[in-house]
Amino acid sequence: MPQPDHISVLGAADPATLDPDLKAIWDKCVEKLGFVPNVYGAYSVKPQRLRHFMQMYNEIMLAPSGLSKLEREMVAVVVSSANRCYYCLVAHGAAVRRLSGDPELGEMMALNYRVAKLPARQRAMLDFAWTMTTTPWLIGETDREALRAQGLTESDLFDLAETVAFFNLSNRMASATDMMPNREYHAEARPKLP
Amino acid sequence: MPQPDHISVLGAADPATLDPDLKAIWDKCVEKLGFVPNVYGAYSVKPQRLRHFMQMYNEIMLAPSGLSKLEREMVAVVVSSANRCYYCLVAHGAAVRRLSGDPELGEMMALNYRVAKLPARQRAMLDFAWTMTTTPWLIGETDREALRAQGLTESDLFDLAETVAFFNLSNRMASATDMMPNREYHAEARPKLP
Amino acid sequence: MPQPDHISVLGAADPATLDPDLKAIWDKCVEKLGFVPNVYGAYSVKPQRLRHFMQMYNEIMLAPSGLSKLEREMVAVVVSSANRCYYCLVAHGAAVRRLSGDPELGEMMALNYRVAKLPARQRAMLDFAWTMTTTPWLIGETDREALRAQGLTESDLFDLAETVAFFNLSNRMASATDMMPNREYHAEARPKLP
Amino acid sequence: MPQPDHISVLGAADPATLDPDLKAIWDKCVEKLGFVPNVYGAYSVKPQRLRHFMQMYNEIMLAPSGLSKLEREMVAVVVSSANRCYYCLVAHGAAVRRLSGDPELGEMMALNYRVAKLPARQRAMLDFAWTMTTTPWLIGETDREALRAQGLTESDLFDLAETVAFFNLSNRMASATDMMPNREYHAEARPKLP
Amino acid sequence: MPQPDHISVLGAADPATLDPDLKAIWDKCVEKLGFVPNVYGAYSVKPQRLRHFMQMYNEIMLAPSGLSKLEREMVAVVVSSANRCYYCLVAHGAAVRRLSGDPELGEMMALNYRVAKLPARQRAMLDFAWTMTTTPWLIGETDREALRAQGLTESDLFDLAETVAFFNLSNRMASATDMMPNREYHAEARPKLP
Amino acid sequence: MPQPDHISVLGAADPATLDPDLKAIWDKCVEKLGFVPNVYGAYSVKPQRLRHFMQMYNEIMLAPSGLSKLEREMVAVVVSSANRCYYCLVAHGAAVRRLSGDPELGEMMALNYRVAKLPARQRAMLDFAWTMTTTPWLIGETDREALRAQGLTESDLFDLAETVAFFNLSNRMASATDMMPNREYHAEARPKLP
Repeated sequence: MPQPDHISVLGAADPATLDPDLKAIWDKCVEKLGFVPNVYGAYSVKPQRLRHFMQMYNEIMLAPSGLSKLEREMVAVVVSSANRCYYCLVAHGAAVRRLSGDPELGEMMALNYRVAKLPARQRAMLDFAWTMTTTPWLIGETDREALRAQGLTESDLFDLAETVAFFNLSNRMASATDMMPNREYHAEARPKLP
Repeated sequence: MPQPDHISVLGAADPATLDPDLKAIWDKCVEKLGFVPNVYGAYSVKPQRLRHFMQMYNEIMLAPSGLSKLEREMVAVVVSSANRCYYCLVAHGAAVRRLSGDPELGEMMALNYRVAKLPARQRAMLDFAWTMTTTPWLIGETDREALRAQGLTESDLFDLAETVAFFNLSNRMASATDMMPNREYHAEARPKLP
Repeated sequence: MPQPDHISVLGAADPATLDPDLKAIWDKCVEKLGFVPNVYGAYSVKPQRLRHFMQMYNEIMLAPSGLSKLEREMVAVVVSSANRCYYCLVAHGAAVRRLSGDPELGEMMALNYRVAKLPARQRAMLDFAWTMTTTPWLIGETDREALRAQGLTESDLFDLAETVAFFNLSNRMASATDMMPNREYHAEARPKLP
Repeated sequence: MPQPDHISVLGAADPATLDPDLKAIWDKCVEKLGFVPNVYGAYSVKPQRLRHFMQMYNEIMLAPSGLSKLEREMVAVVVSSANRCYYCLVAHGAAVRRLSGDPELGEMMALNYRVAKLPARQRAMLDFAWTMTTTPWLIGETDREALRAQGLTESDLFDLAETVAFFNLSNRMASATDMMPNREYHAEARPKLP
Repeated sequence: MPQPDHISVLGAADPATLDPDLKAIWDKCVEKLGFVPNVYGAYSVKPQRLRHFMQMYNEIMLAPSGLSKLEREMVAVVVSSANRCYYCLVAHGAAVRRLSGDPELGEMMALNYRVAKLPARQRAMLDFAWTMTTTPWLIGETDREALRAQGLTESDLFDLAETVAFFNLSNRMASATDMMPNREYHAEARPKLP
Repeated sequence: MPQPDHISVLGAADPATLDPDLKAIWDKCVEKLGFVPNVYGAYSVKPQRLRHFMQMYNEIMLAPSGLSKLEREMVAVVVSSANRCYYCLVAHGAAVRRLSGDPELGEMMALNYRVAKLPARQRAMLDFAWTMTTTPWLIGETDREALRAQGLTESDLFDLAETVAFFNLSNRMASATDMMPNREYHAEARPKLP
């Protein structure tokens, strides 16, 4: 039985009808990635909301930060693992495989990050992400101190917190709209057979 | 023992040093509300992120939608109740009291929404918000159908989902930074003694 | 939509028909508080059970103890928060506001006690109350030792345990009978607008 | 390694020093049961609280009610099973074996009541007890209607709710004080080898 | 209402039709125990699967190991307690009573093992069994180190893990097939009335 | 940081020292698969236990059954997803991709099976597997009836139950021993870039 090929059960805009600024982004995605990520398509039914989502996303994931881009993607995948979000696990799992050059690391982040061999700093970040996602009411000074003890600055703490928070938003949008990831992600950065 | 009076444990910008666009928003808040919501202060350490947060927030909570502003605030409070987020329960609980003119309704949303007497449509929205917050991986077509059966359109579903998703972000930022709500909220729209 | 104004979905006795001892208590409540707490009304359908409930309640909450009356009310609210009991959170949240003269403290106890700034002794008591309420099977000597380390005597431990246990009873009676709190509580001991 | 033989880790009064009314109860227990239930011993450090506990217990478990004494004991054991309370499972498990003449029924109530073959009315009562114990905030009119559909009156609903509520109190007192059941219960009403 | 007397809701083979090797085992069980454990009956509908189950069971529970037979039975009961498996709690609870000569120990393992007074080594084994059963994804080197600190060898760790794993299999077969324990277990190794 | 390359933290036998029957299996694995699955290596420290594990595994996964081999692998992956078992998700996720020829189906089973488009019969099997894994004590006749309504026979129910039960065993052995999957699985049956 073929798997769903919709972008979102709530529909998507016809790309031909998009505003010029969005059309330009669509074109740039195709040029750089070969496809437009379906999360953009899912948000395209409400163009202003799409713009806000992209602005926030780009700042959190791509702006300079004490957390590397790979670390932010690892956090994204661990949050999505806690929330069992299919879209984000597929799309950001691919990003971890690509950025790290380590396909197993991507699988570990998606399936159970505790099996990975990680620097203590990264393990502390992921433990924080898990607690903040599953029991945010328990987060307290002890949890923040564990991150400072690994060398994270107050600015790093802010960035980590916002990354975790953002994927708690996007995971839920994906689940609520049954968002399907682009098929290209499945093939990306897979290991070669030995 | 006096309760904490910080804005965020990660600090806040000196308002005197804010960029002009943000300073203007600070002034407008003081003019309209009498104070600047501490969530803005907490984000002010990273001005660009503050801008994105405000843009997204304003669109979700204030733009035209099939969900009334009160309904969106009710959703905000129920999500915050599931996540036991002190900041958002205090700030948005006050909003429900004010917008509804029913102080008990605000308390019910914060403490256990299931005790409230609500139109079936609103109860369905809040049940969806609870599931999407606590077990997003279980959301499926059955849950969406329950909303459509109450007359929600696909556009309403999108708005509801994004409201729930957004407060799952903001609740976690508040918990991660130990954000304290402005004291004014506690007094707002309380009932008079009979 | 107006909120429920019943005392309990299982009904309440007509005050005119109450036995003299209970009628005297009703009169005293009106004289002292201005109203009869609805929990008494809810129990009045079974007068003997009401008497037992009041006797136990009065001893636990008002008799001399190593725990102050405020501390016992704080415990009551934290237990009710874990159980999301609307009636007890409203009624005893008001008591914390009144006894402490600190309206924020009452809100913190109801919404997430971990955000409050508290003496270590009180924090230990509330942590014990949370564990005893949510996972009583895990309580062991380690938990009791944490309280003794804060100076609680064996008698204090008994009083703390009984307070926690009692509100685990009353929370469930309130939820099972859909007990509604008296509206006066909502207005009690609220802060003035600054 | 011999198992604990204390009554409660918080101690117990020397029976010789008890007030006459309590001494009379001690004597009556020995006469009728052959021993004084340890829950009385555990409470004896605070005589007034013991009196209140016994009064409430006797009314709930022994007074006339639409629920039979066996049904009330079954409810007690199922609540104690949800709370994994050793004392109450041992003491009231024995009561179910004795009152029902069916030793397996007692074991089923203690270990997993869903395996028992029960009249629909009793199954509904136990399902209600389980929900009221583990997620009291979810109890609503649907749950009460399920009981009324089995013929329970409003008075029966009150009695069921109070029984559940009471064992949520006593389970927690037992866990908090590490109360040990009298050894006699283990031998009571066991089946003969075939 | 008499309790179920089936072996399994999925049926059982007629013992007269069993293959000779299985018939021999049936005969030996009757000779040694007085009855054939119903778990064998439940598996007898698929003889080859029964053989595999018995081989694995016998090796895990009876082969030489750094864990005593009693310790393996204690682990079996604690796993079954976490899974609330009626069949295994009854059958292996009886084994703990018999092998230990301490009927209370059997009840403690079944109802809440944390109340038992145990050597630190056994407590560590049971804590490991509980975590491995309820949240296996959290097991890590810290948990294994806690066992090594009590003197368990790598071989002991293997045997402990396999015992826990096996009862997570058998508990689920029992629940899925509504397997009923033989009535003889209820009477076995019960204490005499003092 | 390179990921772990051990077979199991409890070690593995030197293949050169294996008994002839096991050596033959090792050779056959290399011939057919190109490698020996690490679960065999992990068990090889206890040869007799390895034999029992392989016999049970082969019968459950490969013997004739009303459930297809693909269906049994889908069940294996969904159980492993509930238990967040890295080893089994990697190894059996590869099997679902290979047997189905649908790489997305494998990812869906591992990450959140509820997003897959499946025949009602398979969805019912996977829902049963999830409940049996996470809350086995709740399984009852209603759950079995849901399977029979999809055409499963009593024999199919047995096979489904045993498959679920078996992976609840193997998931826990893998977590307890930190078993690492062979790297070949990661590359197996991945989609080609479009």
